Amino acid sequence: MPPQQVLRYIDQHTDQAIERLLELLAIPSISTDPAYTGEIEAAASWIQHHLTDTGLAAQIMPTGGHPCVVGRTPRGMAPEGAPTVLFYGHYDVQPPDPLDLWTSGPFEPEIRHGAVFARGSSDDKGQVMCFLEALRAWVRAADALPVNVIVLIEGEEECSSVNLGRFLEAHRGQLGADVALVSDTAMWDRKTLAITYALRGIAYFDIQLHGPLRDLHSGVYGGAVPNPANLLARVLAGLFDDRNRVTIPGFYDDVVPLSNEERRQWAALAFDEQAFLGNVGVSEDYGEAGYELLERRWARPSCDINGLYGGYSGEGAKTIIPRYAGAKLSFRLAPHQDPARIAQLFENWLHRQPVAGYRWQVTRHGWAAPVMVPTDSPHMSAAQRAAQTTTGRPPVLIREGATIPVVADFKRVLDVDSILLGFGQNDDCIHAPNEKFELSCYDLGIRTHATLLAELGRG
Amino acid sequence: MPPQQVLRYIDQHTDQAIERLLELLAIPSISTDPAYTGEIEAAASWIQHHLTDTGLAAQIMPTGGHPCVVGRTPRGMAPEGAPTVLFYGHYDVQPPDPLDLWTSGPFEPEIRHGAVFARGSSDDKGQVMCFLEALRAWVRAADALPVNVIVLIEGEEECSSVNLGRFLEAHRGQLGADVALVSDTAMWDRKTLAITYALRGIAYFDIQLHGPLRDLHSGVYGGAVPNPANLLARVLAGLFDDRNRVTIPGFYDDVVPLSNEERRQWAALAFDEQAFLGNVGVSEDYGEAGYELLERRWARPSCDINGLYGGYSGEGAKTIIPRYAGAKLSFRLAPHQDPARIAQLFENWLHRQPVAGYRWQVTRHGWAAPVMVPTDSPHMSAAQRAAQTTTGRPPVLIREGATIPVVADFKRVLDVDSILLGFGQNDDCIHAPNEKFELSCYDLGIRTHATLLAELGRG
Repeated sequence: MPPQQVLRYIDQHTDQAIERLLELLAIPSISTDPAYTGEIEAAASWIQHHLTDTGLAAQIMPTGGHPCVVGRTPRGMAPEGAPTVLFYGHYDVQPPDPLDLWTSGPFEPEIRHGAVFARGSSDDKGQVMCFLEALRAWVRAADALPVNVIVLIEGEEECSSVNLGRFLEAHRGQLGADVALVSDTAMWDRKTLAITYALRGIAYFDIQLHGPLRDLHSGVYGGAVPNPANLLARVLAGLFDDRNRVTIPGFYDDVVPLSNEERRQWAALAFDEQAFLGNVGVSEDYGEAGYELLERRWARPSCDINGLYGGYSGEGAKTIIPRYAGAKLSFRLAPHQDPARIAQLFENWLHRQPVAGYRWQVTRHGWAAPVMVPTDSPHMSAAQRAAQTTTGRPPVLIREGATIPVVADFKRVLDVDSILLGFGQNDDCIHAPNEKFELSCYDLGIRTHATLLAELGRG
Repeated sequence: MPPQQVLRYIDQHTDQAIERLLELLAIPSISTDPAYTGEIEAAASWIQHHLTDTGLAAQIMPTGGHPCVVGRTPRGMAPEGAPTVLFYGHYDVQPPDPLDLWTSGPFEPEIRHGAVFARGSSDDKGQVMCFLEALRAWVRAADALPVNVIVLIEGEEECSSVNLGRFLEAHRGQLGADVALVSDTAMWDRKTLAITYALRGIAYFDIQLHGPLRDLHSGVYGGAVPNPANLLARVLAGLFDDRNRVTIPGFYDDVVPLSNEERRQWAALAFDEQAFLGNVGVSEDYGEAGYELLERRWARPSCDINGLYGGYSGEGAKTIIPRYAGAKLSFRLAPHQDPARIAQLFENWLHRQPVAGYRWQVTRHGWAAPVMVPTDSPHMSAAQRAAQTTTGRPPVLIREGATIPVVADFKRVLDVDSILLGFGQNDDCIHAPNEKFELSCYDLGIRTHATLLAELGRG
């Protein structure tokens, strides 16, 4: 628990905290569109100013792309020997299109029904502000912090954090910490916080099978020459057996088996599979035999064709044998599958498929390692205590099927584990029109971060 | 043999016949581009004028699209009781793009190396003119014809003859004939004529498998929901067994087995398979087990994916499970497969494939029946005699893997068999830059048609 004056400060400054959030949300810091470079700089400056105003030493640091804002507590603000917490978030946002589906302007934040509606409200400015306001409350009310803090807010998360890995490597010496704290996820439900302790990785490929020198007339050549599209379909289908398991030899070797404890915990979540599927128009549970839906999403690898192309796809008919056919294809990787090893296994497998003398062109489109952090660490215990304190109930420990590359980068470059603790709701419409962040979540986020800082200070 | 004066007329009017061909080739009668409607009309008028000038009753007859030119010999020009020959060709041409690859302008016909270079020279204006000049020689030199002739020259062959079937139905009563003569194919080689007695048909489909309501995040949903692209690949691969035979039950039921005579004849052709494959960059003979390459092209059905689409196919990576995936897919049909029955068998098969509750959207993109005409008819014998006479060697009897819809339409609507006898070369670059028609082929075509008219008159 933080000192009473910190909690009181939070209670008494709710309006100001909301005002500051609205200010930040009004800056259209769209990172994927070069037209918004000035707004990106404005958002970075705004964050820097907020950190400085809170008493941290903050600077805007260049990367190969949009800058990072880095703030750190000055010497003497935390007790001698206190641990260091590295907080990560991002100030950039997704483009707001389609604009006509927004009830209020995406960069004219408006409060309705107890939530603030704006692009970036939940992803991720609102969550960043939860932490920054918790810091501010500690410094203003207690004139101290229980831990050393490094704040790292980047501006390219919505462009796949393309420069963050190199940035971490270049500034490794200044970013050392005992634990990282990432606030970019959702609560389990409106009453229960979720701590994410594992993420899947990814290995993404573009594969093209190149055949004849040119598109061929399917009447003249049909039945006489191999068709790259027919062969590609056969190869893709061969990736799966009749239990929907990936057939690549060795593919599952390094997958950490689900523990009985995890199976028990996840069953207790009473996850509503029918609602999950029904919400996206799917009627049939489908996937690797022998696993429940949550288990397949969180703890098992998957393989999806992300796109198919080649030959004619316009209106009507064109009677050709296409000269090539291709697919975008990716594997979601479970801990501890290694993307480099999986890529090698896949490519070896691919080159062994019979394709009638045709030629593969394989492009790797980047990858990220899966991540799993120990759930029995002191930091994890601190996070669980903080969540219990502010919500009155234990948080759920979950995994995620998606990839958050920064978490793997923190481990790889800085050798630091991350705690993923977020305050969004699953219906916040991130990356979609009418994105919102609920004010009760904002308040809970500020109080939970303030409490977590205290708990981490206890060690 | 035609009377000596007809052959002498042909010999003495070579230059004029070439001049007339160049005139017709100079008209850019591109049927697929509405900007050329005036040129289409000019080409139709040119043909009508040529027919009238030859002494036929010729008119330009409207269709739902570009008009047909129809000419017929007046009463008294052929002997009483003589048979009627229906000649078919087309005056429209393919677009000439890419223009920069032409050595001379596509509509500025130029004679080089004994050939006339222009769009439409081989396909099909040159071949039409072979027949029209043979007619002219007969009428000018003999003041008579050995058979009644109906000339039907259409203007939409390069747009799939979309209105021709309805035109034939509407004018069935005026187009009755004993045999049809189609000149739109190639010689076997420079010394040997080919008579095509069978064509494959086609049934073309667009199939789409529709899944989730929207594209899904492959991290959040991967492994949990069925992926339409994965399922489509599996279904497409399932169309073939490991001997590359189509797996649809009943698919082969109506295929006319190859006769031993055909196998023997085709083996005697000494078809150069390695050159055929090597010319298009293919190294491996591939197709239905148990058949030679020519047999598969000419006498066996085939199934080709003409295009694949769905999901992401742009630069780089997009991690989605696509909401749908689709394929263009067509069957080349061997005699006597019925396109309607094959379509039904295929669709029944498709709807039996397990696709996890997802929905197929199937579009039929037209079809044509395969055709096979008897090789022992008097008309076929006449064509063989004519070819023997003008080339000094027997023609080869072949099939074609491609589809010429008019031949099936002639059979279906007019109940008339076609003789396919053409004078192009396989390297004439039809539908490509620098299309040519060799002057020796032009001369051979005129003399062979003049001779064939005589042979058909003999009955």
